[in-house]
Amino acid sequence: MFEWTTGGYDAQMRDQIRSWLAEDIGSGDITTETTIAAGSRSRAVIHVKEDGVIAGLPLAKLVFEVVNPELSFEAKVQDGDFVTKGTVLIEVEGSTHSILTGERLALNLMQRISGIATKTKAYVDALQGLPVRLVDTRKTTPGHRMLEKYAVRVGGGFNHRFGLYDAVMIKDNHIKGAGSITAAVTSARQQIPHTMKIEVETESLAQVEEAMACGADIIMLDNMTHDLMRESVALIKGKTPHVIVEASGGVRLDTIHGIAACGVDVISVGGLTYSFQALDISLDLNEKKEVGRA
Amino acid sequence: MFEWTTGGYDAQMRDQIRSWLAEDIGSGDITTETTIAAGSRSRAVIHVKEDGVIAGLPLAKLVFEVVNPELSFEAKVQDGDFVTKGTVLIEVEGSTHSILTGERLALNLMQRISGIATKTKAYVDALQGLPVRLVDTRKTTPGHRMLEKYAVRVGGGFNHRFGLYDAVMIKDNHIKGAGSITAAVTSARQQIPHTMKIEVETESLAQVEEAMACGADIIMLDNMTHDLMRESVALIKGKTPHVIVEASGGVRLDTIHGIAACGVDVISVGGLTYSFQALDISLDLNEKKEVGRA
Amino acid sequence: MFEWTTGGYDAQMRDQIRSWLAEDIGSGDITTETTIAAGSRSRAVIHVKEDGVIAGLPLAKLVFEVVNPELSFEAKVQDGDFVTKGTVLIEVEGSTHSILTGERLALNLMQRISGIATKTKAYVDALQGLPVRLVDTRKTTPGHRMLEKYAVRVGGGFNHRFGLYDAVMIKDNHIKGAGSITAAVTSARQQIPHTMKIEVETESLAQVEEAMACGADIIMLDNMTHDLMRESVALIKGKTPHVIVEASGGVRLDTIHGIAACGVDVISVGGLTYSFQALDISLDLNEKKEVGRA
Amino acid sequence: MFEWTTGGYDAQMRDQIRSWLAEDIGSGDITTETTIAAGSRSRAVIHVKEDGVIAGLPLAKLVFEVVNPELSFEAKVQDGDFVTKGTVLIEVEGSTHSILTGERLALNLMQRISGIATKTKAYVDALQGLPVRLVDTRKTTPGHRMLEKYAVRVGGGFNHRFGLYDAVMIKDNHIKGAGSITAAVTSARQQIPHTMKIEVETESLAQVEEAMACGADIIMLDNMTHDLMRESVALIKGKTPHVIVEASGGVRLDTIHGIAACGVDVISVGGLTYSFQALDISLDLNEKKEVGRA
Amino acid sequence: MFEWTTGGYDAQMRDQIRSWLAEDIGSGDITTETTIAAGSRSRAVIHVKEDGVIAGLPLAKLVFEVVNPELSFEAKVQDGDFVTKGTVLIEVEGSTHSILTGERLALNLMQRISGIATKTKAYVDALQGLPVRLVDTRKTTPGHRMLEKYAVRVGGGFNHRFGLYDAVMIKDNHIKGAGSITAAVTSARQQIPHTMKIEVETESLAQVEEAMACGADIIMLDNMTHDLMRESVALIKGKTPHVIVEASGGVRLDTIHGIAACGVDVISVGGLTYSFQALDISLDLNEKKEVGRA
Amino acid sequence: MFEWTTGGYDAQMRDQIRSWLAEDIGSGDITTETTIAAGSRSRAVIHVKEDGVIAGLPLAKLVFEVVNPELSFEAKVQDGDFVTKGTVLIEVEGSTHSILTGERLALNLMQRISGIATKTKAYVDALQGLPVRLVDTRKTTPGHRMLEKYAVRVGGGFNHRFGLYDAVMIKDNHIKGAGSITAAVTSARQQIPHTMKIEVETESLAQVEEAMACGADIIMLDNMTHDLMRESVALIKGKTPHVIVEASGGVRLDTIHGIAACGVDVISVGGLTYSFQALDISLDLNEKKEVGRA
Repeated sequence: MFEWTTGGYDAQMRDQIRSWLAEDIGSGDITTETTIAAGSRSRAVIHVKEDGVIAGLPLAKLVFEVVNPELSFEAKVQDGDFVTKGTVLIEVEGSTHSILTGERLALNLMQRISGIATKTKAYVDALQGLPVRLVDTRKTTPGHRMLEKYAVRVGGGFNHRFGLYDAVMIKDNHIKGAGSITAAVTSARQQIPHTMKIEVETESLAQVEEAMACGADIIMLDNMTHDLMRESVALIKGKTPHVIVEASGGVRLDTIHGIAACGVDVISVGGLTYSFQALDISLDLNEKKEVGRA
Repeated sequence: MFEWTTGGYDAQMRDQIRSWLAEDIGSGDITTETTIAAGSRSRAVIHVKEDGVIAGLPLAKLVFEVVNPELSFEAKVQDGDFVTKGTVLIEVEGSTHSILTGERLALNLMQRISGIATKTKAYVDALQGLPVRLVDTRKTTPGHRMLEKYAVRVGGGFNHRFGLYDAVMIKDNHIKGAGSITAAVTSARQQIPHTMKIEVETESLAQVEEAMACGADIIMLDNMTHDLMRESVALIKGKTPHVIVEASGGVRLDTIHGIAACGVDVISVGGLTYSFQALDISLDLNEKKEVGRA
Repeated sequence: MFEWTTGGYDAQMRDQIRSWLAEDIGSGDITTETTIAAGSRSRAVIHVKEDGVIAGLPLAKLVFEVVNPELSFEAKVQDGDFVTKGTVLIEVEGSTHSILTGERLALNLMQRISGIATKTKAYVDALQGLPVRLVDTRKTTPGHRMLEKYAVRVGGGFNHRFGLYDAVMIKDNHIKGAGSITAAVTSARQQIPHTMKIEVETESLAQVEEAMACGADIIMLDNMTHDLMRESVALIKGKTPHVIVEASGGVRLDTIHGIAACGVDVISVGGLTYSFQALDISLDLNEKKEVGRA
Repeated sequence: MFEWTTGGYDAQMRDQIRSWLAEDIGSGDITTETTIAAGSRSRAVIHVKEDGVIAGLPLAKLVFEVVNPELSFEAKVQDGDFVTKGTVLIEVEGSTHSILTGERLALNLMQRISGIATKTKAYVDALQGLPVRLVDTRKTTPGHRMLEKYAVRVGGGFNHRFGLYDAVMIKDNHIKGAGSITAAVTSARQQIPHTMKIEVETESLAQVEEAMACGADIIMLDNMTHDLMRESVALIKGKTPHVIVEASGGVRLDTIHGIAACGVDVISVGGLTYSFQALDISLDLNEKKEVGRA
Repeated sequence: MFEWTTGGYDAQMRDQIRSWLAEDIGSGDITTETTIAAGSRSRAVIHVKEDGVIAGLPLAKLVFEVVNPELSFEAKVQDGDFVTKGTVLIEVEGSTHSILTGERLALNLMQRISGIATKTKAYVDALQGLPVRLVDTRKTTPGHRMLEKYAVRVGGGFNHRFGLYDAVMIKDNHIKGAGSITAAVTSARQQIPHTMKIEVETESLAQVEEAMACGADIIMLDNMTHDLMRESVALIKGKTPHVIVEASGGVRLDTIHGIAACGVDVISVGGLTYSFQALDISLDLNEKKEVGRA
Repeated sequence: MFEWTTGGYDAQMRDQIRSWLAEDIGSGDITTETTIAAGSRSRAVIHVKEDGVIAGLPLAKLVFEVVNPELSFEAKVQDGDFVTKGTVLIEVEGSTHSILTGERLALNLMQRISGIATKTKAYVDALQGLPVRLVDTRKTTPGHRMLEKYAVRVGGGFNHRFGLYDAVMIKDNHIKGAGSITAAVTSARQQIPHTMKIEVETESLAQVEEAMACGADIIMLDNMTHDLMRESVALIKGKTPHVIVEASGGVRLDTIHGIAACGVDVISVGGLTYSFQALDISLDLNEKKEVGRA
C-alpha cells in the first residue's frame, strides 16, 4: 500500500494541520491556558469506543507533533488493524496544554477516516473471492481527498483517479458538450499526453460499442441492470480484452456481490467517502505526571 | 439567523474555495479541456434527487463565481427551504468549461451541508413545543466548522461555542489537570476577560453543586439519567436561576424529546455534524447554447 | 496569567515573525553580509536604557530562533519584571550575521510592548487597593493585537474581548442600526450561542435602565460624569447584582482613581495600546568570540 | 511625493488588509450580524476630533473596498492637509454591516499614520528655512514600515533607506565585527552593486576622517556635540564636498533647529515612527438610509 | 490544443504573477514613481526583434491585468503565430506607471516561452510527415512547468506526464531500488489506480522483453543505437501492438529525423525546456497621451 | 562574495523550495511509492557530465533537507569550482524514497545556475586584466532572480541592482514619460532617499552631457560605437571623475574585450541570465544499503 507521505516529505500535510488547528484554536485555547498550570505534564491514552478498522495513526502523530514537537507519541496498533471496543490506540505524553489543545483535531480526523476504512472493509468483505477491485470516487470532503482515499486503501479498497488532472473521464455532460462519445474521445486522444488513459461512462450497449470503437481504455457501465452489465462485459472482453470494465451507480452492501458477479473488473462506490459513520474514539488524561516549569 | 459572511466580507471563504478547487483541478481539468470547445456555452440545472432541507446556495454561488466571475447564477429556492425530489435548486449559465470544472466542488459542498441541515431539522422537529435549544459541538470536519455550524442554524438549531477561543468549557480532562472544579473555575475567572462565560461539565450531583458554588455560568449534565437530570435542573434553577443548563451525551432522535422534558435549556448533539447522510444533488447540462470564441 | 502561546503551539507567531523579518531584510542584509566574515561568531547583550516593565522576552527569543535556530539565547529577567536603566535583559551568542540580522526586529518588538506594559503598570498602580479591573480595548495596532493584549496582562491589567468574534458589544452605531437597545439585545440574544455575553454601551440613566431591562450581561457607562456613574452603579447593583459595570471614556492617569471610586467593576482604557512611549532598549556586540567557517 | 502604490498595483496592501481584518473579525462580527438587518444600508461620516495632519485616506478607502467593493467612499480632504477638530474627512455609504465591520481597522490605521504625519510636520516646521532634510529610521512598527514611511513623507519629511536591502549602513556593531571602518567599507565596496551607496556611523573626528579616507558616500555623526558636528561638517565639506552628512541621536523638537544650524544635510529622527500620539478620529452612522434585501 | 487556464479559472496563475511582480517591485518601482507624474497615461507597443513563434500573449495580458485592471490590452497576433522581426505583438494603453511597472515581467515571460515554442517548432518541422509525437520532459524550470509545457504545445509538440503524480515512469534508479523491472512493474500495478499507465525505461533488448512480459503500457528506449531501436520497435509492435514506444536521449535537430525513422511513436527531448534561446521582445512607449489626475 | 542566505535565515528559500517540490510531486510520487519499499535506504552520487563551473551546492543541500531532514548530504566540491566531466559533486544517503523524490528539483536547479556561472566565467576570462566589472541585469527568470544573480557572482561577475526598489535607473521610456533627462533626474533626486543613486541611460553625447549636468551618479552608454564610447568616457572622467560609466547592448564573448578597452567601469550583459546552456548533471543510486522499516 502506498503511503500518504512521500519519502518523509510531509510539508503540505503539516501546513494543512496548522490551518486546521488555527480553525479550532483561533486566538487561544482559553480553557486550558487558564485552568491548568503552564508546566503541567501528563500521560494520555486514546482508545476506541466501538469496533472498527483504524486509520490515521500517522496523522494523529503529526497533529501532536505540529502542536508541540516535544510530545512523545506511541501507537499501540497499526493502520489497517481491526480493533475492538476499548482497545488503546495511542499513548501521548508531555505538556498537558499541548495534549489538550491537539486532542479535538486528532480525534476529529481519526474518527472520520477510521469510519471510511471500516465501511470500505465491509464492502471488500462482501466481495470476498471475486477478482474485482472496489474503488472510490471524487465525491470526497473538500480538503480531505488524499486522506479519504488513503482510508479507502487502508480498508482494503483501491483508488480511482485522484482528481481532474490525472486521467480523462468522459461523462454524460462531456458527451453532450462534445456532441458524441466518438467526438469526445477522438479530441481528447489527440491532445492528452501519451501517458494518460481515457475512461468513458456509458448507459447503453450502443454507447459501449461506440466507446470500444473509438478506443476507450476504460468503459464504465453506469447504473445498468445485471443483464446489461453481463452483456456489456461479454462484448468488451470478447473484442477488446485489454479494456477495463468498471461498474458504478446504486452500489450498496447488499447489491455489490451481485454486481461483481457480472464480471466487471472494478466497482466504484461514492458512498465510501460521502456517507459514512465516524468511529467513536476518545482521549483520557489517565495519569497526572508532575508539575514543573516548562 | 446570522450569516456566514460579514457585510460582504467573504475573502476567507473565497480563499478556502480556491484551495479546494486546487485540490480537484491540480494541473488542469484535462477531460473538459480536451473534449469541449473552449468557447462553448451552456445552461445547467442543479436539482435534488431526494427530499431534504437545502443549505449552501450562497456557497455554490461563490464556487462558480470563483471559477469564473462571468457565469450567471440563479437560485430557485432559499437556504432553509424543505424541497422534494426533483426540485431545481439552481440554474447556471455561461462557459461550459467553467460549469463543469466547478461542478464537483459545488455539489460536494451542498450535499454535505444540506445533509446536516436535514438531520438538524429532524431533531428540531422532535423537540416541537419545548422551550429548549438544540446545539452543535466542536466535533466538526476540520476546515468546515463555520459551514457546518451554519448548516445547523439553517436546519433550525443553534450553535455552541465556535472554537477554543470564545468561551471557557471545563471538561473532565481539565478538572483532572486543575485538581478540582473549584480550582479550575476560580483560576479561569481570575484570568479571562469579563466578557466571557464559563461552562462546566458535570457527571454527578456533587459536581453540579460544586459548579454552582464556584459560579459557573453554564452547567453541562453529561450522560446523566433522566432522574439525575431532573434533580440537577431543580437544584440549579432553584438556587441560581440565571445559570444555563445543558444536556449532552447519547442523544438520538428517539431520545431527545425525553431529555428535553427533563427541563434543560440546551441539548448538544455531536452527531449533527460528524455523522450524517449527504443529500443527493446533481448537475445536468440541459441545453447547449452556442459555440463561440471566448 | 495565561500565555500568548498555547501548549508550545506557536506556529502562527513564527509565521508572523518571518513576515516581519522579510519586511526588513528584503533581498538581503547587505551591510552585514559584505562587512563581516560569514563564519564570525559573537556574544551580544540586550540592555535597557531607561526604567520600565519588561515584556516580550519570549518573543525576542522566538525572533532569534526563527533567524537561526543555532543561536543560544539567555534571558536574564522575566516578563513583568520592573527593571532600571542599564539592566541586561538578554544574552545572545552565535553567528554574528544572525544576531545583527535579527537585532532590529527583536528590539522594535520589545520596545513597543514593554512600553505598553510600563504604561499599564502606572495605571494599575493608580488603582491600588480598589476592587476594579483595568482593561484594554480593540484600539490596537493592526497585526499586533494579541501581543499588545499580552503586554497589558504583563503590566497587571486585564483584557476586554479579543475581537469582533468572542463577545457581543452593542455600541451607539449598533443601537442606531437596530432602532433601540432593546431591539438590538433581543435580536442578538435570539441568535448568539448560549455561551456568549452581551455588553451594551450607555450614555444616560434611561439607557442604563433599558439595558438592564432587556438583560444585558455587561453595561458600559460611556463618558459619564462621576455623579451619573455613581447613580448608574447603584441602580444596576441594586436590581441586577450579577451584571458587570464598565466605565470608559476620557480615562487618564490623574482621573482613573476617581472613576474607580464610583464603584464600577471594570475600567477600559484605549490609550494603553494606541498611545504609549516605547521603552528604549539596545543591543551591543560586546565581545568578539572567534572567526571560523560556519 | 511618491506614492505607496505603484501604478495601481496594490495587491500586497490588499493582502495585508485582509490579514488585519481577519485579526479583528475572526469567525465573524457577531454584534453587527445579530443586531442589524442584513439588508440595512447607511451613510457614515468619519471626522477628526483634534487638529492635525491627515494621512491614510487612500488606505481607509482600500479597507472599505476590501470589506465590500460595493461601498461608496468619498474623501473630503487630501493626505497632507492640516485639518481642525470636527472636520469631516470621509463619507462612506452602503451596507451597514460592511461599514461597521471595517470601521475599527480603518480608524486604527488612520489614527496611527496621521499621528506620525502630524509629529513630522512639527519637526519640519521647526527647520523652516534651513537647507536640511528630516528623515526617518528603521525603528518602525513591524509590518507597518511602508505606511509609516509614507506618513513621514506626507508630513513633509523624507525617507532614509527602506530596509537592510537597499543601502549599506555601517554601524558600531559592524565596525566591531569587521575590525575597523576601513575594513568594513573596503569589503563592502568590493562586493556591493555599483548602484549602491555606503553610509558610515561615526562618533569622533578620527572616525570621520577614516570614513572620508576610505570613500564613504554618507557620513553619519552620531550623538555629537554641536562643536564636534560643526568641525566634522567643515572637514567633510572641505575635502569631499559630494559626501552627504547626516546627524542622528537625541533629536527633539527643541533641539533640532540647533542641530540643523551645524550645517548637516540630513537629520534622522527615530521617534517620528516609534513614539507618537495617535490622532483621534471617529466614525458616526449619521443617517439611516433604508432597509432592503441585499 | 488545451489551454493553460481552465474555464476562466486562472486564480493560481494570478497568484504566481503577483509573487513574480513582488520579486521585481519589492518596496516600490522608485524610478517610475519619482520621474513620471502619477496621472500620466501612455500607449505602448510590444514588438519582436527577431523571427520566431510567439507564445504567452494571454500571459502578458494577465500580467498587465494584475498590475492594473484598468489597462487596455490588445493582442495583434495569436499564440502559435510565426512572426518576423519588427512585428507588433501587443498594444497596451493606460497609466504610464502601470505599463512601466509590468513591462519587465511581461517581457521576461514572453521571451522565455516564445523561445521554447520557436525551438519546438524547429524540431517538429524536422519530423515533417512522420507519424511520431515530439514530447517534452520534467526538465523544466522550477515554478514554470505548466507554462513551458504549454509553450511546447504552442510550438506543435505534445506533453509527456506533468509531474510525478499523473503516470508511473520506472527509470534506472527505480529498477535498482525494486530489484528488477518485473518487480517494479508488478508492485506498481497492484497499487496504482486502474486509470493510470506504467512506462518503463529500457537500455537493452533484454530489458525491452522484460518490460513487455510484465505488461508495461509504454516502453522507453533510452540512448539506443538506430539498429537497436529498430529491433526493439519490431519486437514490441509484433507482439504487443497497443504498447507505445518512446525514444529518448541525445536527440538533436540533426538527429531527430533519423530516430523517428526507426518507427517509434514518441520522441522526448529535454532540451526543449532546459536549453533554449529567449526570443528578443521589447516595449516602447510610442506616444504620450495626456496627463491627468488618476 | 556575499551569500544568498543571511545569517542562517533561509526561511524564504525553504518556502520557495516547498512550492517547487509541490509543482513536481503534486498528489504524490507514485512511481517511487509503488515500486520501492518504504524502508529502503540508499546512497546516491550526483556527478557532472560535462566541464563547467559549479553553483548551487547549498541549494541542492536545502532541497534534500526540505524533502527529508534525515538525509545526509556531503558536498565534494565548492561553489565556484571549475570541474571536469565525471566529477562527483555530492553524496546523499538515506531513504531511497526521499532521494528519488528530491532528485529532479535538485538537478533542475543546479543545472541552471551552474550554466549561468559557467557562462559568466567565460566572459570574465575574456576581460582578464582589465579594470572593469561584468554585471548582470533584471532579465532573469521570474522567481529565480536571487539565485541567478548569485550564480553570476559565483562565476566571477558582479550584480547590477536587484530590482526596481534599490536604485533609480532612468531609461528611454522614463525620459519620454518625464519629458527630458533633466526633468527625470531632478524629480527623482527631490524625492528619493539620500541613500540612493541615480543611473541614466544615454544614446548620444548630448544625452551624456545632459546626464552629467544634472548630476547622475552613473551614466550608461547604450549600444554606442567604440568611438562614441571612448569620447563619452573621456568627457565624463574629465569633468566628473566620481561618476561611474557603464556600457550595455550587444555585448558578446567576442566583443566584450573591445568594449572594455574603451575605458568603461562596468559592462552589463543580459544574456548571462536569459540565454545560457544548462550544465548536464545527473544522479545515480550507486549502492543499495539496506531495507528496514523507516
